Amino acid sequence: MHRMGVAEFQALIERDLPIGRWLGFRVEAMGEGTATIRLPARQDFLRPGGSIAGPAMMALADCAMYGVVLGLRGDAVMAVTSNLSIHFLRAPKPVDLIAEAKLLRLGRRLAVIEVSIHAAGEDRPVAHVTGTYALPSPSHGDGSAVP
Amino acid sequence: MHRMGVAEFQALIERDLPIGRWLGFRVEAMGEGTATIRLPARQDFLRPGGSIAGPAMMALADCAMYGVVLGLRGDAVMAVTSNLSIHFLRAPKPVDLIAEAKLLRLGRRLAVIEVSIHAAGEDRPVAHVTGTYALPSPSHGDGSAVP
Amino acid sequence: MHRMGVAEFQALIERDLPIGRWLGFRVEAMGEGTATIRLPARQDFLRPGGSIAGPAMMALADCAMYGVVLGLRGDAVMAVTSNLSIHFLRAPKPVDLIAEAKLLRLGRRLAVIEVSIHAAGEDRPVAHVTGTYALPSPSHGDGSAVP
Amino acid sequence: MHRMGVAEFQALIERDLPIGRWLGFRVEAMGEGTATIRLPARQDFLRPGGSIAGPAMMALADCAMYGVVLGLRGDAVMAVTSNLSIHFLRAPKPVDLIAEAKLLRLGRRLAVIEVSIHAAGEDRPVAHVTGTYALPSPSHGDGSAVP
Repeated sequence: MHRMGVAEFQALIERDLPIGRWLGFRVEAMGEGTATIRLPARQDFLRPGGSIAGPAMMALADCAMYGVVLGLRGDAVMAVTSNLSIHFLRAPKPVDLIAEAKLLRLGRRLAVIEVSIHAAGEDRPVAHVTGTYALPSPSHGDGSAVP
Repeated sequence: MHRMGVAEFQALIERDLPIGRWLGFRVEAMGEGTATIRLPARQDFLRPGGSIAGPAMMALADCAMYGVVLGLRGDAVMAVTSNLSIHFLRAPKPVDLIAEAKLLRLGRRLAVIEVSIHAAGEDRPVAHVTGTYALPSPSHGDGSAVP
Repeated sequence: MHRMGVAEFQALIERDLPIGRWLGFRVEAMGEGTATIRLPARQDFLRPGGSIAGPAMMALADCAMYGVVLGLRGDAVMAVTSNLSIHFLRAPKPVDLIAEAKLLRLGRRLAVIEVSIHAAGEDRPVAHVTGTYALPSPSHGDGSAVP
Repeated sequence: MHRMGVAEFQALIERDLPIGRWLGFRVEAMGEGTATIRLPARQDFLRPGGSIAGPAMMALADCAMYGVVLGLRGDAVMAVTSNLSIHFLRAPKPVDLIAEAKLLRLGRRLAVIEVSIHAAGEDRPVAHVTGTYALPSPSHGDGSAVP
């Protein structure tokens, strides 16, 4: 089974995920069931009050979940988010955010993944996410997920 | 109590929510406990497979929830998302998406809101969201939410 | 395709779901993509403060989701909850609770269902639930769900 | 600030949480921001297929979250679940289940808590939960939570 690594996932973001490209996601690590993505700080991500907007964090978490999937099954580019639940814990200062995602369960059709987001240089999480990706069947010629 | 209307919320997005400005959100309606926001289709929002990326829908839902809050309490600009749970139902075709948000419960400190997203010209929802906003205390001079 | 009706689902609860039997669930209606279950009030369900405990509502919602699944695919007894997200809206008075579940999306492998719970004689919901059931493959001899 | 310990929380369950009493919850540990609760195996908790029913796990997780709250603020008996999101990972064998809850964030009004449930003698989680408790104001004479 092909496993996607840092450079390949970064290239996929640049080429096929325009939102991730606009947000400036940087793939920092891909492991066996783990992925780390950085959101470099930018004025564009602020919200009233000067902290980072929730949608930037949701997009970051979703990308880290996708990284976990592709790090396990590089063929599963057509995997799609089935559900995502986020709890915001603290208003993050306008610095880089780092999402660390970890596989909770890999099934044939579903992967459940946990993500913790923290600000660069801080330990305490600013958001906690749990979500499910629907995986394409390995046997489908077109790799499409059929949830 | 000041209630924010369509023009005022649209202006706030343009001025203070750069992500919403980049996504091109259009406020279509603000009611008493309801808000409707449109995401005009654009190549930027696609993902592998040609459907609209999940983060665009999460941002859209969050904005519609914020609209419900501001339509009830125009002073609550500092309200923040406390949690959000999204279920993706169908891969949306690359057309405009419309989020319709509806208040489920307004407390002194929390507002719980439901959002249904559908593609323009279709009835069936493509995503369903439930979430909570933490509201600033009316009595705080700075209007900050203290969750 | 066999569709389970009120009497058959009630019998399944009595026979195979001891928690539902202890809670006293009453199946009130099964439609095409809908199910209504009642939790008759009892001292056993109270919590400090005199309202009904959250776990009773979560069990009720889960049962109503299961009813939606079985009302569509009576063979899917082995369907299992994949995820469930509940927002509690108001502390319910200690009266009967009624859960009304509605299908949001039926796929081959997953059903996404929404549930609203309200107290008997009141319109306003006391809890809102969204969840996913993993469905067994129709072709599996043993009917087991493989998430 | 009074912090509730194992014996006191066990006594509260026996006296004031009839559902927890019926389920047979055993408080195993209460720490500073942590709580461990055991659900001793019993035929009553089974579901079709012979695994443990989801509602038993949801009730267990909710109790562990409540334990975290009371271990930090023993006066907060009137705290209530505001939301709960559970992902079921594997069908648990019919053995004791153990929920380990950990505080993610304690605010003045809300506590966000994560729970992992595993079967006795196994490391791999069978369910993962994130939820929020609404806390009563310390200054309220009656200790009621006002979400």
